[in-house]
Amino acid sequence: MSAAPAIAAVDWGTTRLRLWLLDGAGTVLAERRGDDGLISARDKGFATVLEKHLAAAGAPAGLPVIMCGMVGARQGWLEAPYVDVPSPLSAVLRGALSVPDAGRDIRIVPGMAQRLADAPDVMRGEETQLAGAGLAGRGRHIVCMPGTHSKWVAVEDGAVTGFGTWPTGELFSVLAAHSILRHSLGEHPTAVTADSPAFRRWCEAALAEGGDIMGRLFSIRAAGLLHGLGPDDAAACLSGLLIGAEIASANRRYPAGKEPVALVASGALGVLYGAALGLAGHTIRPVDADEAVRAGLFAAARENGMIASTQEPA
Amino acid sequence: MSAAPAIAAVDWGTTRLRLWLLDGAGTVLAERRGDDGLISARDKGFATVLEKHLAAAGAPAGLPVIMCGMVGARQGWLEAPYVDVPSPLSAVLRGALSVPDAGRDIRIVPGMAQRLADAPDVMRGEETQLAGAGLAGRGRHIVCMPGTHSKWVAVEDGAVTGFGTWPTGELFSVLAAHSILRHSLGEHPTAVTADSPAFRRWCEAALAEGGDIMGRLFSIRAAGLLHGLGPDDAAACLSGLLIGAEIASANRRYPAGKEPVALVASGALGVLYGAALGLAGHTIRPVDADEAVRAGLFAAARENGMIASTQEPA
Repeated sequence: MSAAPAIAAVDWGTTRLRLWLLDGAGTVLAERRGDDGLISARDKGFATVLEKHLAAAGAPAGLPVIMCGMVGARQGWLEAPYVDVPSPLSAVLRGALSVPDAGRDIRIVPGMAQRLADAPDVMRGEETQLAGAGLAGRGRHIVCMPGTHSKWVAVEDGAVTGFGTWPTGELFSVLAAHSILRHSLGEHPTAVTADSPAFRRWCEAALAEGGDIMGRLFSIRAAGLLHGLGPDDAAACLSGLLIGAEIASANRRYPAGKEPVALVASGALGVLYGAALGLAGHTIRPVDADEAVRAGLFAAARENGMIASTQEPA
Repeated sequence: MSAAPAIAAVDWGTTRLRLWLLDGAGTVLAERRGDDGLISARDKGFATVLEKHLAAAGAPAGLPVIMCGMVGARQGWLEAPYVDVPSPLSAVLRGALSVPDAGRDIRIVPGMAQRLADAPDVMRGEETQLAGAGLAGRGRHIVCMPGTHSKWVAVEDGAVTGFGTWPTGELFSVLAAHSILRHSLGEHPTAVTADSPAFRRWCEAALAEGGDIMGRLFSIRAAGLLHGLGPDDAAACLSGLLIGAEIASANRRYPAGKEPVALVASGALGVLYGAALGLAGHTIRPVDADEAVRAGLFAAARENGMIASTQEPA
């Protein structure tokens, strides 16, 4: 007999939504992925989009829902005000905000803000991944969370003490589509792989130059004109340059020391960053990004009393 | 009595064309500016576009024409193969290529290439500006030529010995239009001025961090969310960050020492770079970019015997 769902866990970002039905032990019973991110959900209505996915996943009426991500931003469903650093992750989870009049118990985990005058920063969604990444109560961790807007986070004794954003994925997309490098990368750049010599060489160069990308971007174009660099290698150069620069820059702000860097990522991006962190001399502790956000949402549901603690394990 | 034109000088780039009629002493008799850059000229025909502007400027039949810029690129009118560094600027000018069957004497100054394995680079147009910037035969100069693709050039005893490209202007445009920073800068960012405190503060921060932009780009967005940073200041932050980073990065490759940096620029961009170079501790020797390209084209016409050296001055 299959277990009954105890909670729906939703990671709702700018461009996509992921939903899981979890039993009382956190085991996945059903999963949905959609491209109903913030932009399309604002038009269709957040409740409508959510209920559609819940119904399609087979969620029973009245199942409580815990959410994280941009759904809690000012332009989202309901603004869940940021929790300022430093803050224990458990306190962030406990600050989940109830969505009123939603026909079921729906709560949104707040994001975090760093209100430093010279390094203001915000995150939404990553705090929940961090809470599910198995870093609680175990000394100091440097966490690398690659993506469109990569985050580097310092976690000490279960509390976020500082973080920063490196818009590496966005720079790659924007430069590949809209800068002169579009001539070098072509219309459909292939996925970059970590074993590409061009990726490794440009990553090492960026690491050696401390995060400066501006002096090398145009070289990718010039290498096409002078050395016959092809589109696949051009994409690998750009990727290696940006990821290497991110790591060099982030290392300055968050020196990792001898401890492994916790790398919260999935799939091909995790492999690329793993290789780049290796070139930078780091050992890594890999954390699956999907599992982390699910575990964080489940922990948030527990912290907020949304799952009966007396419920029997499945 | 006004002097007769001796040469038409044309700076023909990717997005625009500028044409001057000069007398035998290099004095401007007429000027035309058009947005018939390479892209539109490829459709209309280069000869058609040029003859239209020559006629509108009042050029007599048979007037010789000297040109520089992207018109000599592979995708231009006629490819004028690059001259490799190191090369005396006078030798570059003498390498002007004749356009065959053009109905008049038309020549294109070649660009320059730096075929280093780890710093390949190309320029077209700037070599002519350099030749007209009054740097010939006077020791070592570091030249800053700001723009969409800023160039930094080392000129020694009248020869270009090395150069690099920093795509600062393009990064500003692309990030302002296509990245998350478009929300910060708004639809129509106002022109940034050098007396903006935000410009100066972000420029100094970028200089202090050695040219790393990646760790600060997202801060502009976060400062809007957390500190109420408005669109004008956001544009000033981005401009200061990029220009400061360009200077820090270029200084590493081309240390200027105690000599003034020759700043080849015009108008507001020259003022911004002058301020930023000052923050970096440089003194500058300003060179007007328009006058420099005109003087360089005139020198090229002379070097190629297109202007009778016996002609009386006007």
